[in-house]
Amino acid sequence: MSIQTANHSALTPLRFLERSAEVYPTRTAILHGERSYTYGEFAQAAQLLAAALAADVAPGERVAVLTPNTPESIFAHFAAPLAGVTLVALNTRLTRPEISDILRHCEARVLLVDTELVERIEGIRELVPSLTKVIEINDSVSGLPLTGSSSVATDYESYVSAQTPLTTTRPYEVADEDAVITINYTSGTTGTPKGVMYSHRGAYLASLGSVVHNQFTAESNYLWTLPMFHCNGWCTAWAVTAAGGTQVCLRAVDADAIWDAIDDLEVSHICGAPAVCTTIATADRAHALDRPLRITTAGAPPSPTVIGQLEEIGVHVVHVYGLTETYGPFTICEHQAGWPDLPADERAVLLSRQGVGMLQAEQARVVDLDMVDVPADGETMGEIVLRGNNVMVGYFRNKAATEEAFHGGWFHTGDLGVMHPDGYVQVKDRAKDIVISGGENISTVEVEQALLRHPQIVDVAVIGVPDAKWGEHPRAFVITEPGVTLSVEEVVAHAREWIAGYKVPRDIVFADGLPRTSTGKVMKHELRTR
Amino acid sequence: MSIQTANHSALTPLRFLERSAEVYPTRTAILHGERSYTYGEFAQAAQLLAAALAADVAPGERVAVLTPNTPESIFAHFAAPLAGVTLVALNTRLTRPEISDILRHCEARVLLVDTELVERIEGIRELVPSLTKVIEINDSVSGLPLTGSSSVATDYESYVSAQTPLTTTRPYEVADEDAVITINYTSGTTGTPKGVMYSHRGAYLASLGSVVHNQFTAESNYLWTLPMFHCNGWCTAWAVTAAGGTQVCLRAVDADAIWDAIDDLEVSHICGAPAVCTTIATADRAHALDRPLRITTAGAPPSPTVIGQLEEIGVHVVHVYGLTETYGPFTICEHQAGWPDLPADERAVLLSRQGVGMLQAEQARVVDLDMVDVPADGETMGEIVLRGNNVMVGYFRNKAATEEAFHGGWFHTGDLGVMHPDGYVQVKDRAKDIVISGGENISTVEVEQALLRHPQIVDVAVIGVPDAKWGEHPRAFVITEPGVTLSVEEVVAHAREWIAGYKVPRDIVFADGLPRTSTGKVMKHELRTR
Repeated sequence: MSIQTANHSALTPLRFLERSAEVYPTRTAILHGERSYTYGEFAQAAQLLAAALAADVAPGERVAVLTPNTPESIFAHFAAPLAGVTLVALNTRLTRPEISDILRHCEARVLLVDTELVERIEGIRELVPSLTKVIEINDSVSGLPLTGSSSVATDYESYVSAQTPLTTTRPYEVADEDAVITINYTSGTTGTPKGVMYSHRGAYLASLGSVVHNQFTAESNYLWTLPMFHCNGWCTAWAVTAAGGTQVCLRAVDADAIWDAIDDLEVSHICGAPAVCTTIATADRAHALDRPLRITTAGAPPSPTVIGQLEEIGVHVVHVYGLTETYGPFTICEHQAGWPDLPADERAVLLSRQGVGMLQAEQARVVDLDMVDVPADGETMGEIVLRGNNVMVGYFRNKAATEEAFHGGWFHTGDLGVMHPDGYVQVKDRAKDIVISGGENISTVEVEQALLRHPQIVDVAVIGVPDAKWGEHPRAFVITEPGVTLSVEEVVAHAREWIAGYKVPRDIVFADGLPRTSTGKVMKHELRTR
Repeated sequence: MSIQTANHSALTPLRFLERSAEVYPTRTAILHGERSYTYGEFAQAAQLLAAALAADVAPGERVAVLTPNTPESIFAHFAAPLAGVTLVALNTRLTRPEISDILRHCEARVLLVDTELVERIEGIRELVPSLTKVIEINDSVSGLPLTGSSSVATDYESYVSAQTPLTTTRPYEVADEDAVITINYTSGTTGTPKGVMYSHRGAYLASLGSVVHNQFTAESNYLWTLPMFHCNGWCTAWAVTAAGGTQVCLRAVDADAIWDAIDDLEVSHICGAPAVCTTIATADRAHALDRPLRITTAGAPPSPTVIGQLEEIGVHVVHVYGLTETYGPFTICEHQAGWPDLPADERAVLLSRQGVGMLQAEQARVVDLDMVDVPADGETMGEIVLRGNNVMVGYFRNKAATEEAFHGGWFHTGDLGVMHPDGYVQVKDRAKDIVISGGENISTVEVEQALLRHPQIVDVAVIGVPDAKWGEHPRAFVITEPGVTLSVEEVVAHAREWIAGYKVPRDIVFADGLPRTSTGKVMKHELRTR
């Protein structure tokens, strides 16, 4: 008996690969340097990896990937659900302790790791009891030889080719559309990463929304600058597959590589943090385009200067807003009919707003502490709350945090904002102690805890400060033991031992004390005005 | 407590109007001659009608509309679900007995009827005990005065303006996404129309699929030549609203009116039967276009000649296939990369195929009597079966027909076809006794029964024969009493008393007898080869 009935099938992104492999078997699905896969080959690769995973990971258990943007990561986004297991895509900038914490928390069974990152996971099996196998992805584009590391069981090619010839094709379907398809770990305010669970249904709808809003078609060429470990690349691996378009992988964000792809591969779509926009706009090779290119950006509003530079060369810039908890983008700053005629600075102000709920999402609300909508006056601050199919299932094995996030029946973003009279939301400040730098979430609490491990640091507070390139960067106010003088370099070197490089504050302010409330809470708003 | 939870909302097309009214309140949603509605006004109109309906129709009961393509029909597509009632859009070509049969079957409470059609429903309340109110839609574009008919309770404007000022706005949500949103009556093989039930979930997904495949955007201008009573206009009233585009109504398909709209209103999309394509292509005013125009056609494959004529003036022709039971289109003949370079006749052959499952649908299959897929050789015939979210809930109050249609867990189309090696389905013949003429389903059984009511006709068989303009037309083989001679005009005049004009056969063959099987069944395939 089939999982599906005649008039009801469970929503799952797996359908997208099934369809494109049938309709466009010889069309190019994935490009990566000299490597290239048709949709037929893509489906075959996903089936092979699924067969291999199914032998090592029980249904519902987790498989993790630690890799730059490579075809194998795209394969895994389909292979894991095909095998009935849950995918955990790890941030490639995490340190060994951070990675092992996550793998322990999700009890990962198998880890796929790119050659470039194998040294990061040396000895990890001793730290993660559940982990039975580490597979090395040796991407020829990296130019690196297999590591031969004793931590690695085998390499990816051997792992999957052991399944050939495939005797059965797994069906591109799922029994329960509310089942968990992936878990994305995100820095929480407590400093402990939380595992954000996505469902098949949510991923399917977010992908369709992405197709509609990005206008992905079978002619689209999508360039991967956004990491696939961020909200599963905003569900774009699924969305571009739905449209039958081509995904172009990039191991690292690099102006030359991006412009090569734009010029030689007719890239039509890019998603990324404002820093990526800046990289593209300010590259020496930047030039006027003769084809449409759409860049969707989030994490911080794009600066008027960068918007102006991009529009001048013919790029259409779209600003979206979301969180790991919302499958990536939830709102979009829809361009209105009259906007192209406005002066550039006025338009930039409008485009800097986070906007309105996307088609597959619901309206964003801005509410006061009693969950009452604030006036839509563009001035009254409240918390931005969201709900609907574009909101996560919950935090994996963290009922308390899930309940807190969902109190009142809405997901609490922790972002403070205003509602404009035209229904557009604008983020004004962050209620949670998170700094977003270059599109990465940095928990200020986590940074503070790392700094406090230094024997001569007695107190610390970290805030986010505006940064022209990265949107924000973390600034640490450090109080040392009386009579002790530390250098910035000493503090940075200490922090690097404990947290990923992108979290390490270089902006250190040595202070005499911190402003605290009567209950002992640091008044960070006071620090921000210093 | 809200119907929705933080991370799960019931899929419903109502969300589309909610969003577009918020995001594009001043954008033109509907154009109809001199009449024009912004999205804000559209939402207000739907709310007013919903409030009026809620006073007369209990939750879950039916409201019917009998109108050409007018703004009121679009309003009703949102107002009925807003009020929690089910919409039944009636074919405007039906006779009074046909209309009253349907209204009795669905126990309609309220009927909205256009002035032009009021004479068709005179005295209908006596035939339909459930019907408490008939409302006359007096469309100023028709130029007709209110009828003043005693069958009519009030006119539309009075009906809805009694609700002003609206004190509450109904939420654009539904408790259960599997609830029935509309019922579409279709001619069945038995001659008794069957009520095809659509769900909110199915309508939502079919609409999103329509947005993706038609590439509807907020800049789209959709011209209504397809009747809204056909599969709710293939869900296009919802789909265009989702995209925030403009819907242009037409009371009747007319070459001049269509070309006026193309030239003056920048129409970008049209859906319709092949006859509409022919009307557009062969109009005296047909000329090369300077903007993209996409025409999606179904019901019969577009002819190579018409495809050629349309492509020559710059129209992109898309061929889709579906049934009332599949929310309209289920498969689409996706254009492949190499096709534009093929000779016109070869391309027309490829485009005449029904194609592959749409994104929101599943794969179409072609199976033998044991539900085993026939070889994908383009030659072996089988029945086309479909399943998934794009298949109806079932037939209203007709369990036997529903079970028969769904036997084996798939919806049986009754269409015989082949599967090509490239995965494209092609319809070759019809297993069911249905003639599709000008996009309208005609039950041969129903026509036969009408003809047999003539006292001097003793036997009859109706088949469909190819028709250059209408795709097919019905041909009746008529056996009269011995010694009696009837004229074609007499037979036609008789039939017109009982069935809608489009069902009446003009192609009459007077025969001596009908070829029958040993069990008495007419061998229609034998008639077809005559």
